[in-house]
Amino acid sequence: MKTLGTLGEREAIRLIDRIVQSDAEVGIGDDCAAIDIGDRYLLVTTDMMAAKTHIPKGMKPYDIGWSLVAVNLSDIAAMGGSPIGLVTAIGITRGHPVDYLESIVDGMNECAQRFGTSIMGGDTKEHESLTLCGTAVGEVPKNQIILRKGAKPGDLVVVSGELGLAGAGYYSMKRNLGLTDCEAALRRPRPRLKEGAALAASGLVTSGMDISDGLSSSVFELSRNSGMTYEIDYSTLPKAEEVGLVFQDLERQKSLVLNFGDDFELLFTIERGAESDLEDITARTGTPFTVIGKVTSGEENILIDNARREKLENLGYEHFRTRQS
Amino acid sequence: MKTLGTLGEREAIRLIDRIVQSDAEVGIGDDCAAIDIGDRYLLVTTDMMAAKTHIPKGMKPYDIGWSLVAVNLSDIAAMGGSPIGLVTAIGITRGHPVDYLESIVDGMNECAQRFGTSIMGGDTKEHESLTLCGTAVGEVPKNQIILRKGAKPGDLVVVSGELGLAGAGYYSMKRNLGLTDCEAALRRPRPRLKEGAALAASGLVTSGMDISDGLSSSVFELSRNSGMTYEIDYSTLPKAEEVGLVFQDLERQKSLVLNFGDDFELLFTIERGAESDLEDITARTGTPFTVIGKVTSGEENILIDNARREKLENLGYEHFRTRQS
Repeated sequence: MKTLGTLGEREAIRLIDRIVQSDAEVGIGDDCAAIDIGDRYLLVTTDMMAAKTHIPKGMKPYDIGWSLVAVNLSDIAAMGGSPIGLVTAIGITRGHPVDYLESIVDGMNECAQRFGTSIMGGDTKEHESLTLCGTAVGEVPKNQIILRKGAKPGDLVVVSGELGLAGAGYYSMKRNLGLTDCEAALRRPRPRLKEGAALAASGLVTSGMDISDGLSSSVFELSRNSGMTYEIDYSTLPKAEEVGLVFQDLERQKSLVLNFGDDFELLFTIERGAESDLEDITARTGTPFTVIGKVTSGEENILIDNARREKLENLGYEHFRTRQS
Repeated sequence: MKTLGTLGEREAIRLIDRIVQSDAEVGIGDDCAAIDIGDRYLLVTTDMMAAKTHIPKGMKPYDIGWSLVAVNLSDIAAMGGSPIGLVTAIGITRGHPVDYLESIVDGMNECAQRFGTSIMGGDTKEHESLTLCGTAVGEVPKNQIILRKGAKPGDLVVVSGELGLAGAGYYSMKRNLGLTDCEAALRRPRPRLKEGAALAASGLVTSGMDISDGLSSSVFELSRNSGMTYEIDYSTLPKAEEVGLVFQDLERQKSLVLNFGDDFELLFTIERGAESDLEDITARTGTPFTVIGKVTSGEENILIDNARREKLENLGYEHFRTRQS
């Protein structure tokens, strides 16, 4: 009997995509579904988080509520959209203290407010273990939507912010290192909404997504969707300083930066020559952008490390499989 | 330490409502959130179902997928809306067979297609036990939206279809009675979308909701939202024939009809004199409507049973508390 443990998350999503007859303009397999509502696309995305399988130990209830909202808003950001609002479903045990629920809802509410939107409704149900499901609704002008497909050979690959910060936060929390900045990145991720909307409005972007499941995983997703291959130059990656504080070993640093996930930065492609236009967006948003490689029409995705070309492995986080650490 | 088990679901929802700063025109506490998007309201609703706490034994994976979509569409129907689409999050164990997931998705897809909409996207995550979360998005013209508030003294109370059918199905399944019609009502609930939209367009309705948590619970919700009281005449309730097949005892029949839930019928109020206009909607939809009482400005909600006036008890299904049976 074939089980989901042998199938893996990506194949499970493909299986669902084959069964479902979606009316959406953009359906399963992008960061959000996009539905034509006349002058613009309505964006809808949903994410489930279960305490036992997805929430790192040490996350406080406020952080959990914040994260639920942030991960959904990050999917809206990835499509270049602006949020309209969220609904959240909370499955919680009878034994949970009332103030634990209050803290979750405080975190949800404050993250939504911080990013210019709100929790509009939800559902509260008894569950044997804490399980949250958030859904964000947003909108984007039709000609501005950023999809996972669309990159062409020669396009430059760009990432926002720093890489490995949330991963360093995970290890800092696990080992009580007290590295507060990177722990904050894990506890209170900041969806790149204004950056996504500015990139979408700029017309520079040929494809994009967020890197919630890790950089390598996201490169493979963009590659699969465009039918192109990607060359990433490891030396150019904007590695967070904290990565060197949690791992001295360079291979472990590399694995964390490439594969850990939870950074909620944007990975996207632009036409060659458009780099200088990104500076305007940095000036407006305060967020740095770094060119980390280029789109090619080769055989496989490549990582250039110390002038050595190696195959980029797709080792990002995948559900139903064991997390490497 | 106060826990959710002592607070109960309704108080938990009120607590969330106090914390959350919603931008929606209609927020927490109605069947859907409603957001002003110019010429109409966008409707958004979410529902979580966990195998161990909400899904009756004997439900097949196809039924579970169908139900997830149906309960969300029922909330759209309750507001008089038309569905735009759904996103669904599936939390499932590594050990679940792949074809179990396929059946869930088949059920979701076919229910959506049957009611003129589609699954647009979703999320699939590993979970320690089967947990589903669906979100439906819909729309309604601004002047047609049906809310829980709005009833006035003298209005008539109306319910669609039959009462107790799904409850009878629950006991038929539990005792292997093989009453297929009522079991089908529980396994494959049918959201009253065309009825809800026709009622909304008619302009007859002063308030309304669905009765997924039971008739008594819904009467209390409408009462609380309008600030009015309700008088329900038990002898007029459109009791499903199967109720008499699962319980001979008249008190148990009464409890099932008033409190069980899962019928997904619409409960609403209309101005006195509008009864005859409902016949047109029945002619178009094939769904009967029954006047079961009236709105008053009394002290408490009343049930008239055999000419005896008794207090109507709010015994509908509430999470975090034990189900009576």
